[in-house]
Amino acid sequence: MRPDSLAELGEFGLIDRIRSRFPAPSGVTGIGDDCAVIPQRSGNDTLVSTDMLVEGTHFLREDITPYDLGWKSAAVNLSDIAAMGGRPTATFLSLALPANLDPGWIEAFMNGYADISGRFDTALLGGDTTASPDRICINVAVLGECPSGKARLRSSAMSNDLICVTGPLGDSAAGLKAILQGVERDADVQRLIERHYRPVPRVPEGLELASNLYVHAMMDISDGISSDLEHILEASDLSAEIDVDAIPLSAVLKRVCKRYGWDPLALAAGGGEDYELLFTCSRQAEMVLTTPHFVIGRILSARPGPGRRITWRGGTPSAAGFDHFKKR
Amino acid sequence: MRPDSLAELGEFGLIDRIRSRFPAPSGVTGIGDDCAVIPQRSGNDTLVSTDMLVEGTHFLREDITPYDLGWKSAAVNLSDIAAMGGRPTATFLSLALPANLDPGWIEAFMNGYADISGRFDTALLGGDTTASPDRICINVAVLGECPSGKARLRSSAMSNDLICVTGPLGDSAAGLKAILQGVERDADVQRLIERHYRPVPRVPEGLELASNLYVHAMMDISDGISSDLEHILEASDLSAEIDVDAIPLSAVLKRVCKRYGWDPLALAAGGGEDYELLFTCSRQAEMVLTTPHFVIGRILSARPGPGRRITWRGGTPSAAGFDHFKKR
Repeated sequence: MRPDSLAELGEFGLIDRIRSRFPAPSGVTGIGDDCAVIPQRSGNDTLVSTDMLVEGTHFLREDITPYDLGWKSAAVNLSDIAAMGGRPTATFLSLALPANLDPGWIEAFMNGYADISGRFDTALLGGDTTASPDRICINVAVLGECPSGKARLRSSAMSNDLICVTGPLGDSAAGLKAILQGVERDADVQRLIERHYRPVPRVPEGLELASNLYVHAMMDISDGISSDLEHILEASDLSAEIDVDAIPLSAVLKRVCKRYGWDPLALAAGGGEDYELLFTCSRQAEMVLTTPHFVIGRILSARPGPGRRITWRGGTPSAAGFDHFKKR
Repeated sequence: MRPDSLAELGEFGLIDRIRSRFPAPSGVTGIGDDCAVIPQRSGNDTLVSTDMLVEGTHFLREDITPYDLGWKSAAVNLSDIAAMGGRPTATFLSLALPANLDPGWIEAFMNGYADISGRFDTALLGGDTTASPDRICINVAVLGECPSGKARLRSSAMSNDLICVTGPLGDSAAGLKAILQGVERDADVQRLIERHYRPVPRVPEGLELASNLYVHAMMDISDGISSDLEHILEASDLSAEIDVDAIPLSAVLKRVCKRYGWDPLALAAGGGEDYELLFTCSRQAEMVLTTPHFVIGRILSARPGPGRRITWRGGTPSAAGFDHFKKR
């Protein structure tokens, strides 16, 4: 007999299901005690991040499949570890769920969560399941590790560094725009929507980049490059110039934007959730980097003007485009 | 000028406030990057737990002060570290807050959170602040450490162990009952309510107990001793007998129960959220333990009957009492 609702399955039934789906690696105590117990490897630093997703703020239940929501919940956290140049080791999932939720929804959610976690050998080692009066609320905490002192911070950009990204930008924002405008979902549009719902955290890229001493500051692009780069510049107390023509755009994005009259550069510069890595490195390092990347600008020491840290060169994205995305 | 609402303060304003209230210890990167970076001490295990509190399920905004809610959010997580015999090192706080929330509410919440965290030298090293359409949702993830292999698990009880608790039980459940029934808040009732809203995690007690090799299984009492002991017995595949008369009751609890005709043993055995430690140890260890504690029973290898693991000796708590608390 398959239970019809979460209330019928019960909290312990749910935990048992999750536990059997996510066995703990050997030597590690995972789900089922007061805490997870993880042996430490000496010479490493522990990396920790956490993210909360609330129904009605971050997603609408009718718009996103539970599989995609599970995937994205894990992916955005794994991306934070990638952004430090670390290796994710474990996640902890808290779920507040309405009692009438179909257990099939949870199963699909856990499948998405497992698929992206498994791709990077990251175990689910604990969490909390609880009732919610109405909205689904999800919190993921992620642990990772990196060699002592080697985490790539936002504050370590250096003057004259090149500014690079690991992949094309704007696809995710265009996918969201397509969902919100309800445009026809042909193969191109579907691809953009997938980039929005199933981001792939750049874990191997982050590890590879962090193995190079001349890769300095790093972060993941979650709010859009103009806003995210600002964080690096503030933390490092530097400024930057960006060559707008050098911002990488996918062929799919260009085609869809042309069809609907959207501005691809506004999407690429102002739109978020690409989860590509944004990093700075010295010129000599850039020439020998094997990680695929695109140089989009330079770190400068002089400020372009009071309160401003970024100079856009070669056709700034339209003000309307930027304003649109800041308001969203 | 003091902002009137969270919307006016803004996410970055809120993060700045929290950051200035919780400076990171030296050598640690706390709030403000993609991840916190925590140096590892070799020879230790990392302990991790997480807990979610949802408005309407776990608390009502009009019933609990923001100070108490902040205190309790941190305390229940610190208690999970205590339950393993570990030392808490850092917490990560996710807050989903409605935009019209008074910033004074958040300040009081953070004060409660800081006061109990500071008592155990536990830093707030990161988190997430986000908008909620209506209900407040809180998630805390906590990190701790203990010497490698020394965490006290639920599965390590041994036959013939004594079963002990670190303090009187039932106060918290009586405090909740007083709140729900709206009884007059004299000094005694106020004391019980405080035990409900401001539990003090047994961190030093847990550390001291875990330093004794003959202290075997340990956990904190969050659901009530009958339900929590069941977890130890299941994980250890053993059974137990409990001397009901030996369950420690505070004088305050006895007085209030007498006045209102409540059953103190039902509250002590079936009520939860005492956050005392429940542990098992060998007889010789018990005699030399300096941590204050009460022996309430013994671990046995024989089952009292099919499906049952606990035998209550000397006046079982009334079925009505137990049923009442299971349903709540």
